[in-house]
Amino acid sequence: MARLVMKFGGTSVGDPARIARVARHIKREWDAGHEVCAVISAMAGETNRLIELTSEVAALHDAREYDSVIATGEQVSSGLVALALQALGVPSRSWLAWQIPIHTTGVHGAARITDIDPKEIELRLRGEGRERQVAVIAGFQGIGPDNRLTTLGRGAGDLTAVAMAAALKADRCDIYTDVTGVFTTDPRIVEKARKLDRISYEEMLEMSSLGAKVLQSRSVELALVHGVRLQVLSSFLEPEEIPALDAKKIFVVPGTLVCDEDEIVEQLVVSGIAYSRDEAKVTVRHVPDRPGVAAEIFGCLSDANINVDMIVQNVSEANKTTDITFTVGKSDLKRALEALTPALAKMPGVALNSDDGVAKISIIGIGMRSHTGIARTMFETLGEKGINIDVISTSEIKVSVLIDAEYTELAVRALHAAYGLDKT
Amino acid sequence: MARLVMKFGGTSVGDPARIARVARHIKREWDAGHEVCAVISAMAGETNRLIELTSEVAALHDAREYDSVIATGEQVSSGLVALALQALGVPSRSWLAWQIPIHTTGVHGAARITDIDPKEIELRLRGEGRERQVAVIAGFQGIGPDNRLTTLGRGAGDLTAVAMAAALKADRCDIYTDVTGVFTTDPRIVEKARKLDRISYEEMLEMSSLGAKVLQSRSVELALVHGVRLQVLSSFLEPEEIPALDAKKIFVVPGTLVCDEDEIVEQLVVSGIAYSRDEAKVTVRHVPDRPGVAAEIFGCLSDANINVDMIVQNVSEANKTTDITFTVGKSDLKRALEALTPALAKMPGVALNSDDGVAKISIIGIGMRSHTGIARTMFETLGEKGINIDVISTSEIKVSVLIDAEYTELAVRALHAAYGLDKT
Repeated sequence: MARLVMKFGGTSVGDPARIARVARHIKREWDAGHEVCAVISAMAGETNRLIELTSEVAALHDAREYDSVIATGEQVSSGLVALALQALGVPSRSWLAWQIPIHTTGVHGAARITDIDPKEIELRLRGEGRERQVAVIAGFQGIGPDNRLTTLGRGAGDLTAVAMAAALKADRCDIYTDVTGVFTTDPRIVEKARKLDRISYEEMLEMSSLGAKVLQSRSVELALVHGVRLQVLSSFLEPEEIPALDAKKIFVVPGTLVCDEDEIVEQLVVSGIAYSRDEAKVTVRHVPDRPGVAAEIFGCLSDANINVDMIVQNVSEANKTTDITFTVGKSDLKRALEALTPALAKMPGVALNSDDGVAKISIIGIGMRSHTGIARTMFETLGEKGINIDVISTSEIKVSVLIDAEYTELAVRALHAAYGLDKT
Repeated sequence: MARLVMKFGGTSVGDPARIARVARHIKREWDAGHEVCAVISAMAGETNRLIELTSEVAALHDAREYDSVIATGEQVSSGLVALALQALGVPSRSWLAWQIPIHTTGVHGAARITDIDPKEIELRLRGEGRERQVAVIAGFQGIGPDNRLTTLGRGAGDLTAVAMAAALKADRCDIYTDVTGVFTTDPRIVEKARKLDRISYEEMLEMSSLGAKVLQSRSVELALVHGVRLQVLSSFLEPEEIPALDAKKIFVVPGTLVCDEDEIVEQLVVSGIAYSRDEAKVTVRHVPDRPGVAAEIFGCLSDANINVDMIVQNVSEANKTTDITFTVGKSDLKRALEALTPALAKMPGVALNSDDGVAKISIIGIGMRSHTGIARTMFETLGEKGINIDVISTSEIKVSVLIDAEYTELAVRALHAAYGLDKT
């Protein structure tokens, strides 16, 4: 017997037939004798419909009313999943955030979970003094300090699942999504991409931040902090195609297990190649090379609430000016250029260039810590293909480069082969 | 300054434009300095959409899950109305039943309100130690003894409004609907039907029970018990077309005021003609005339949860058998006949007939108590038109007859004229 949290996203509960399939996935684990807590997102399209309604009614939202309206999506789908389970003879009930309760900060629209009281749910999972039943939880929502509904931000259904798993000390948290696991890279680009059996939290965190959309990075962070083992797997498989959890083999999964690096026996040096075309490059040329210049430039971006990702500044030439290059989200580019204008007006001779035809390619692997020459392989591989590197940035377990977007697929495929990730 | 509850039904908030109009109705009263509590139904069609979803997922409903799903309709619309008010510069917030709270019995799907705590809302209506604001309440829902959401039954948005008005000791409860008030009869049948300025609770109760669908009868009952003055008026009028409440003239209304009979100066003998084609007539002939027979017949109907309306049994003839006639809801007819079969099988010689081509026509008026000859006018009028009366039933303030449904319009028009209700 094990304790399992199962999370189903919006496409997994998109219509009554899919909801019935989700119920059969849950029933499989229930039938195997496990204690099951399911976390459910709003039916696909529903959250957007509700957001649109609020926009039509009022251009400016009171985030508290917005949250109260938006949170209904998960209220509906969790009730429906509980009904579908009952129709299969599985005792279950739905739980809204305020009923558990899941306490959050009062930052409506992007609240953080502060506290979960799992007592009552635990008693029912175990069947202690109550009917044993499956708990079906409305994801994405919480209750703020003022007793009003909050939401955790787009894509935060995963977050509820991980937080519940932590509160319930679950043996595993299975995230059902529309892919069969985490891949070495995007299979739409590289046919030979392989599903990883295991990946460390740190690597997954980099993958999520660097463009792989399979897990929300806040959720991975929370899983890392609380040591929650996450499995990513597909809800489009039929329930029979997935074996029920075996309490003695928590680590053997059909999807990908995100876990502590100690739990990964065969570590790859590079375990994934990520890419993102969502960034734009900005270059400020002929910047006077004096103290405080960088602060002036990045200060006005931060005042405008614009996130800066990569930053490169080379050592100054003899003429006492330097070039600064950085990247911002593509959708922020226009605002970034406007925000820079006043600061640059005070620096005679500077020139501002921008380019949104760039891609960020990253190699990720915990093995980098102990292996040398990893970055060199990357640069050589790209060089051989005639791909020019604009900007480089590194962390302990990843190397990212900015290149011309036209070369994205070529670069990803070449690197995938170079690091021995192609499946055989 | 007065305290006002304003209730808006589903068609009144059917789309963003109508929600904006509702907000302007509320703003009119806010601008006049009143304390306003609005009660909102789900957007037209939404409750049916949600019911359909639950039916598609599970044929048999757990009423608790059903309620949790269905209650989202009002959660969305109340949030949207609060947003629309804020967009007009009127401070407001939405309230869900569990936030107030509105406690109910645990009979999911048809719960009864047991208790409302209006403290926090009152402080905000008055602006005492808090921002003064409009309270926008999600109608139709409550919270049961087990901390789960309940709903009050179809059409029970009115009920929430009346209960809030009672709890808040409001000066008036205005029910905005799709008609301009309560009419002497259905204006679609009788062109000369008049809007009544005032009507007593008792008369309204009979009208609601007898087929006039303008107010839900449970709500009228509750208003009677708590002495809540109800106004029925149209939300399709533009906000400018309705004058703001004048605190000194609570009784002067553009719609129809439902109030105590003492507050009605000019009482009509008959104030309304109601009709219903929703009933069917059942006749059991040659019933043995012995004690307990009626109990046997109506016992099996009540066991089958079938409501019986009119009942007529004539005194027995010499041959020691009698005929019993009664009416049931048309949709219950088939089940009623099935339920009767076992009981009748024990009574040799009985014959069972039914007819669903009947209509119930009623005249209603508090004046009947003190006037004689009212029923006689009814029978004479119908007789003159050649309309045969099947069954008669009376109460202190109404007379109902069952006739062939084909004569419905003719009968209603003739009676409307006979009692002097035609507008001049």
